[in-house]
Amino acid sequence: MGLFGKEKENAAVSTERKALGACLQAVRTTTPLIHNITNYVTVNDVANALLACGGSPIMSDEPMDVYDITSICGGLNINIGTLNERSIEAMTVAGSRARSLGHVILLDPVGAGASTLRTTTAQTIVNTVRPDVIRGNISEIKTLAKGTGTTKGVDADAADTVTEENLDEMVSFVKNFAAKVNAVIAITGAIDLVADGNVCYVIRNGRPEMSKITGTGCQLSAVATAYAVANPENKVDAVAAAVCLMGLAGEIGWSRMQEGDGNSTYRNRIIDAIFNMDSKTLEEGAKYEIR
Amino acid sequence: MGLFGKEKENAAVSTERKALGACLQAVRTTTPLIHNITNYVTVNDVANALLACGGSPIMSDEPMDVYDITSICGGLNINIGTLNERSIEAMTVAGSRARSLGHVILLDPVGAGASTLRTTTAQTIVNTVRPDVIRGNISEIKTLAKGTGTTKGVDADAADTVTEENLDEMVSFVKNFAAKVNAVIAITGAIDLVADGNVCYVIRNGRPEMSKITGTGCQLSAVATAYAVANPENKVDAVAAAVCLMGLAGEIGWSRMQEGDGNSTYRNRIIDAIFNMDSKTLEEGAKYEIR
Amino acid sequence: MGLFGKEKENAAVSTERKALGACLQAVRTTTPLIHNITNYVTVNDVANALLACGGSPIMSDEPMDVYDITSICGGLNINIGTLNERSIEAMTVAGSRARSLGHVILLDPVGAGASTLRTTTAQTIVNTVRPDVIRGNISEIKTLAKGTGTTKGVDADAADTVTEENLDEMVSFVKNFAAKVNAVIAITGAIDLVADGNVCYVIRNGRPEMSKITGTGCQLSAVATAYAVANPENKVDAVAAAVCLMGLAGEIGWSRMQEGDGNSTYRNRIIDAIFNMDSKTLEEGAKYEIR
Repeated sequence: MGLFGKEKENAAVSTERKALGACLQAVRTTTPLIHNITNYVTVNDVANALLACGGSPIMSDEPMDVYDITSICGGLNINIGTLNERSIEAMTVAGSRARSLGHVILLDPVGAGASTLRTTTAQTIVNTVRPDVIRGNISEIKTLAKGTGTTKGVDADAADTVTEENLDEMVSFVKNFAAKVNAVIAITGAIDLVADGNVCYVIRNGRPEMSKITGTGCQLSAVATAYAVANPENKVDAVAAAVCLMGLAGEIGWSRMQEGDGNSTYRNRIIDAIFNMDSKTLEEGAKYEIR
Repeated sequence: MGLFGKEKENAAVSTERKALGACLQAVRTTTPLIHNITNYVTVNDVANALLACGGSPIMSDEPMDVYDITSICGGLNINIGTLNERSIEAMTVAGSRARSLGHVILLDPVGAGASTLRTTTAQTIVNTVRPDVIRGNISEIKTLAKGTGTTKGVDADAADTVTEENLDEMVSFVKNFAAKVNAVIAITGAIDLVADGNVCYVIRNGRPEMSKITGTGCQLSAVATAYAVANPENKVDAVAAAVCLMGLAGEIGWSRMQEGDGNSTYRNRIIDAIFNMDSKTLEEGAKYEIR
Repeated sequence: MGLFGKEKENAAVSTERKALGACLQAVRTTTPLIHNITNYVTVNDVANALLACGGSPIMSDEPMDVYDITSICGGLNINIGTLNERSIEAMTVAGSRARSLGHVILLDPVGAGASTLRTTTAQTIVNTVRPDVIRGNISEIKTLAKGTGTTKGVDADAADTVTEENLDEMVSFVKNFAAKVNAVIAITGAIDLVADGNVCYVIRNGRPEMSKITGTGCQLSAVATAYAVANPENKVDAVAAAVCLMGLAGEIGWSRMQEGDGNSTYRNRIIDAIFNMDSKTLEEGAKYEIR
């Protein structure tokens, strides 16, 4: 709740928080249509999370189809979670088309650092498609920034974790990388960082139990795409709002858990909480500071 | 509830309604095995919805596999929601085989009108595989009938909506198209139309909140395939029964929603309601007229 | 609960049961990372079931990606439920690599017997990759053992069912096949059999309603892979523990069902029950005998 923020930010808290709520409202008002090239593991949850937040999903990963499909959308969400030769070509075709139309493009580099194909595909997309937003765990983002990584499957390496101790260093890292690739960078974990070259949101929403559900990261990437599409003038705030939303939904969903419930029910309750989120709840529940 | 129907139909309501319940019962008694070539977004819900209604699902979209698989099934559900070069070939192989065996074939032309590939693939299937049933939203069906369309992603264009005002015109349109392609046509939306060349069911079951869940249309297509397979002598009634079932399940599912529930829980409750549906509930809850 | 077991086994029940709980605990302690090449129908449930049991999932089916991915994992789960030309190549590449690294490999021959491609693919994997564990329904396993089969889609042929009447014969069959292919064989159905060449667990956990949910078998295969990875010295006990776990989760999940719930909610409750399972509950709830 801004506990670690500078005085200047704290003084502006009220306006800032209203900006988060305004980002949410813009999505609900404009129903952005998002083209998703995403993995088949979490794709259903991605679609329902997009609908829950007020967006509209369409999925297509066939090179012959994606040019047309991305053309009628407002944003493109590229997730390499189960990439293959065909879908990589589709990412290139759709990415190029979306770029030329000025659409918002988000990259979720799932597993970058865990295989050569994932690392090189993600790096190629960063260099050629030039996404507006990149969201991943710390190992994936470090892999993109440094060219190699130690991603443990699709989870971050424990040695990479963002902690209170290394927070200053990590904030510098993410701002520098954001400036270098001219994108909003979102690193999610126990502490989330959302930065462009100038500011970095440090976000402390969420629950550790969210890591026991597959796909909360994928859902967030899709939702963040919708938020950035609906708020093109302030993408870093929009992505931060989406990150706060997802974490807060995780908190609200957890508060509704009953005796005997587990990760499958928790999955439903988180999407339900996104569905029911309103601006006021988001403004009051967001736990963040700006650095 | 037949409020707008002609006198002749109203007089026959009781027998008619029992026909809907008989269609349901035939599925539960015969457990039709349905081969699905469908999208990876909603495929899990499609499988569970088929099981819930009393059918049995199998999925295969590899050209080398589908000839054998469709041969042991009773019906084929073709859904182009995430079509690709391979699955399009599989649709052709399976469609041809299923046609030659006299199996029921349903086409769900997801996104026809939204891309050239989707439009041409759907039209090719209509012309060569000659499906027994086509189910889509109004924009998709208009695209098939007219050759071009304005499908908004995978949702219907608002300008196309079936309303009380244009209902007479739409009933004529769907009957004519059904006669032209010699298939049962199901157009689903706020008002659903199910027609062959002679009769048109106008169905008013369902809830607007169903559009906030991905895949209720895909589920319906799979369930309608099972209903048509189990009721080969009266396919238009069988598909109408499936449409009433899905809408009624949406109503029952909604009635079980609790404080804090959202679209993810609603998704579960709809499939649960299909699972628990019996003939009596369907007969009494179906809201339709025949024109 | 060992009602049909020999006296010797009954006397050892307490130690045996603690072995099952120890297998569970080993998974929770070591968090085995499992590479899954699996079908897109049930993949999300497979991932959540793996997380629920204490494992960690990664999915990849692109031949260019799987060598690297399987290298960082502890086990490989191969499921041919929606096999295609690309994923079959991936199974070969990953299988060969996993074999050379001494990783645990499980094969789930979904639909073997229902198509030539499925039968030959499953047989080729058995012969070349030489899996440590094979889990399927009785028709699929008979197909592998005898070269032909009568699998009804993805369900077992009723004529094949394991019953109290043919149990002795089936126990011999599964032990012999296990010895022949030098693998743990798990046949699941109303009565489950888990055998190596020496012993056969006869397991009577579970609920018939589990067959009304898609994917409980796929989930079990993934969980059994994790169990075998975490318990490399006693794979047959580990796989038996996983089979007991899944059946018991089905029982616990069913006990939590409420008025109006159906197969979709049941799906969630089963995964929830896996998530909440502890060693004591498993040890006390497992219903098995050893032959």
